[in-house]
Amino acid sequence: MEQRLQAYINDIQNLMDKTFDTFLDQKNIPDRLKESMLYSLKAGGKRLRPILVFASYEAYAKHPEKVLSTAAALEMIHTYSLIHDDLPAMDDDAYRRGKLTNHKMFDEATAILAGDALLTYSFELVASDVNLSSEEKATLLERLAKCSGPEGMVAGQVLDMEAENRESSLAELEEIHSLKTGELIRFAVFAGAYLGNASEAQINMLDQFAYKLGLLFQVQDDILDVIGESEKMGKAVGSDEGNMKSTFPKLLGIEGAVSKKRMYEKQAKALLQKADADQSYLLSLVDYFGNRDH
Amino acid sequence: MEQRLQAYINDIQNLMDKTFDTFLDQKNIPDRLKESMLYSLKAGGKRLRPILVFASYEAYAKHPEKVLSTAAALEMIHTYSLIHDDLPAMDDDAYRRGKLTNHKMFDEATAILAGDALLTYSFELVASDVNLSSEEKATLLERLAKCSGPEGMVAGQVLDMEAENRESSLAELEEIHSLKTGELIRFAVFAGAYLGNASEAQINMLDQFAYKLGLLFQVQDDILDVIGESEKMGKAVGSDEGNMKSTFPKLLGIEGAVSKKRMYEKQAKALLQKADADQSYLLSLVDYFGNRDH
Repeated sequence: MEQRLQAYINDIQNLMDKTFDTFLDQKNIPDRLKESMLYSLKAGGKRLRPILVFASYEAYAKHPEKVLSTAAALEMIHTYSLIHDDLPAMDDDAYRRGKLTNHKMFDEATAILAGDALLTYSFELVASDVNLSSEEKATLLERLAKCSGPEGMVAGQVLDMEAENRESSLAELEEIHSLKTGELIRFAVFAGAYLGNASEAQINMLDQFAYKLGLLFQVQDDILDVIGESEKMGKAVGSDEGNMKSTFPKLLGIEGAVSKKRMYEKQAKALLQKADADQSYLLSLVDYFGNRDH
Repeated sequence: MEQRLQAYINDIQNLMDKTFDTFLDQKNIPDRLKESMLYSLKAGGKRLRPILVFASYEAYAKHPEKVLSTAAALEMIHTYSLIHDDLPAMDDDAYRRGKLTNHKMFDEATAILAGDALLTYSFELVASDVNLSSEEKATLLERLAKCSGPEGMVAGQVLDMEAENRESSLAELEEIHSLKTGELIRFAVFAGAYLGNASEAQINMLDQFAYKLGLLFQVQDDILDVIGESEKMGKAVGSDEGNMKSTFPKLLGIEGAVSKKRMYEKQAKALLQKADADQSYLLSLVDYFGNRDH
């Protein structure tokens, strides 16, 4: 990977860890709850969504502190969704990224409440940011809630569960993933461009870019599940094999999935150019998303 | 109870049922998720929080449609907290208000996601309301998140769990309840007065009023748990007796709890006068809260 991008990514990853500590330390939260929230926030997440927020913002503007609360809020929502997803009633996972899941480290009740707390706090974070105008807050909060709620990420979660034990078509698979992971990726890219004062036309192009990037992300996830190395993923490889659940490699074969991925990459890059954002980190992030090994 | 108040309450209860249907019908939500959300939203809640939003608003202003989205959002947050609270990992309740709890009617995964969806959607509802200015949205959303998050309702939930199997002092008991139920009651009263353009001094007095009202609510809840009739409560009477958990009657005796209640009533009414709101429905709501039998 390009060295400059790696340094950029590392900076944001460090910034996020520090930010979570700072934000939560200021608050009067019961010890066990705070511990549980921080445990999952700092459990080695790749921070892909915050990175996208920053890269999208910096494609158009300077002073990235403007997007810090939005990036952190988005990662909190992503983290809450993983905590709830891992619960016994859902995917029943004991490990994630090689570490105990929240309910295994603490207990189920604490995990449920830590998820609820992260989700709720994410909205507070944006709503209380003194660097944002009221209009920016209202716009971001409406979109963030829509992307992560019953028409967005939660809908994807429900449809994904329903698809667990039956075969799905390629169109259904794309629909599930565009809701389950794609909506937050779209929000990340939108938020950065919007706060960076991109034009409406640029934002529209970037939104299409983000849609492709989300699918690219998921195809690579499915491919890694088949060919990835267990240690790198920190979960059982081939875990989607045990049930009927459709994946891109199952529907298209590994080679078909790889060529699908290449197509998304190409489309995403073309859209970046139309959004006047092909000189930004977003361009190399396309390859980063498509070539990641965990 | 005063006939006029009863009619007022009925109107708001009907309005809320209709509002939930209308709001959710407009949205593209997977069937089972929507069904699960509506099931708990329409499971016979008393709508105390929406009633407080409306009564607080109408103490200072006309055109109550201004607070509709806030009232609905608050009831959604209350409902999500009950759904998660009833889960096997938490209170493990099969019935609430005489009806099956959400996870018993559907399943645990659906109940977790319905709760998540209601919480998230509540923020969208306020953020997308065309009757509110951006500044009003930002103010309400920040406060709503703070009241229901890790420093507010969720904190109360955690502390309540921790207090389950040990005795607590009266001060600890008041702390737990002021977080677990009091914070949302305070938000209800704040939101109404704020949107009704009450003065800062009036809002401050009302906030103290709401704090007392929250405690009054909880004392009555504890009293009902001891002496209430099983059918009216729709749950097992004396369910707090099985564990060590402290309640007002346990700490003070029934008579002590009743006189505590009378004190809160008196204090609440005095504060209403100072807030110039003693000609409103809020005054009779104090008695309603203190004398309710379910």
